[in-house]
Amino acid sequence: MTKRYKITISYDGTKYSGWQIQPNATTIQQLIENALEILLKERTPLTGSGRTDAGVHAVAQIAHFDAPKELILPPFLRSLNGILPNDIRIKEIELAADNFHARYSAKKKTYHYVLSCKPVQDPFQRLYSHHISHKIDLDLLKEASQLFVGRHNFTSFANEPCKGSVAKNPFRTINHINMIEESCGVVRLEFEGEGFLYKMVRNIVGTLLDIASGKKSINDIPDIFAKQDRRLAGRAAPALGLFLVSVEYPNDQDSP
Amino acid sequence: MTKRYKITISYDGTKYSGWQIQPNATTIQQLIENALEILLKERTPLTGSGRTDAGVHAVAQIAHFDAPKELILPPFLRSLNGILPNDIRIKEIELAADNFHARYSAKKKTYHYVLSCKPVQDPFQRLYSHHISHKIDLDLLKEASQLFVGRHNFTSFANEPCKGSVAKNPFRTINHINMIEESCGVVRLEFEGEGFLYKMVRNIVGTLLDIASGKKSINDIPDIFAKQDRRLAGRAAPALGLFLVSVEYPNDQDSP
Repeated sequence: MTKRYKITISYDGTKYSGWQIQPNATTIQQLIENALEILLKERTPLTGSGRTDAGVHAVAQIAHFDAPKELILPPFLRSLNGILPNDIRIKEIELAADNFHARYSAKKKTYHYVLSCKPVQDPFQRLYSHHISHKIDLDLLKEASQLFVGRHNFTSFANEPCKGSVAKNPFRTINHINMIEESCGVVRLEFEGEGFLYKMVRNIVGTLLDIASGKKSINDIPDIFAKQDRRLAGRAAPALGLFLVSVEYPNDQDSP
Repeated sequence: MTKRYKITISYDGTKYSGWQIQPNATTIQQLIENALEILLKERTPLTGSGRTDAGVHAVAQIAHFDAPKELILPPFLRSLNGILPNDIRIKEIELAADNFHARYSAKKKTYHYVLSCKPVQDPFQRLYSHHISHKIDLDLLKEASQLFVGRHNFTSFANEPCKGSVAKNPFRTINHINMIEESCGVVRLEFEGEGFLYKMVRNIVGTLLDIASGKKSINDIPDIFAKQDRRLAGRAAPALGLFLVSVEYPNDQDSP
């Protein structure tokens, strides 16, 4: 009788070709499946809440797998972390309902995008933020960000993935976007939504940076949405500033 | 007529064999001298406030050098950072008095030692904190730390450097040691003093961790001080948790 387990994973995406297994590249899903194979003595597929791209980080990615038997969790967690490199950590493992699905059961996701807005980049932030050395208008960035909140057709802000199918439904709902100005010039953009299209957060951030730098006008946004043309929006902001921060599930009061 | 310049440097020490130039190793002093040589067209010695060991980080190390002529500072700073790798950043450059000396003029230094006290290490802290996975008594650690404050003979807490001379005077004054418990299990020990002997902060932290883990008693400390024997104190805590945070100079109201 197999048992389904939910794991919470934190990773520094710097060295990896993203979450999803692919040939000739080292990915986070692959390394965790390798570790599971060592411990469970059989290849065990791991299903994530969604992909993260090459270089994108996760504070709390969620995934599930089915084990052939019930596991003794604290030692299993320690063994998994003992096998994995230290830039990938399993923070939690818990028994899940048989019908729990890391991807299909997800109801809400939060991403943070971190900007570092000092003339000289902090070396400790260099792998974990997008450095903006020129002056940007943060008030305008904040105002423009609010035009993305709500339910929209995000075609102009979604890339077609190289592999895998394009989402059939281009409508998504962003619940809120908050801009937090931290000390030392760090600005954090917090995106909460039901789900996001491929590269959508980075494309929105790229567009917001174009507006905050004076390259685009805030008044262009409705037109960019309406024309449903990816070429009209800004370029994707770099992967290293993006963090998958949480994935929430129904009746999941202790969600990370 | 040469001009003396003071620079403030931040570096991620992970990849480097410390501050000081040495054969067959990449050091921070060396890379900055190489960059200065490119810009000033001559080899120019750089004098730091003191060494940091291999793997130790700096939020604000201070150094000085003499340039053959007055520099135009904003472009010079940008050029220096353009040549240096992005884990070493010159944060500030300023004209200094002719008699300013980064080492001999220094009146106060602050080091932070960062502990990460969660069962599973945060991957984003893995290069910037010492992970303690077992339970430690933080109240006891805090209490014991106060025994190091004040003027003491720190012989038992100083290593002999492989190169360079042993300090003749083993007395040092620690002005204060604060323990700050941050969110997410991060504990920061802040050391402020007039100066520190070789590996002194790391040796004190190692001893404090022995006490907080029950390997040593807080009552052993006076005896360890009195016997002036390095073997009696704890092992040096790992370099990756240590940050040189500031160096202060007289009449230096804008010190970093």
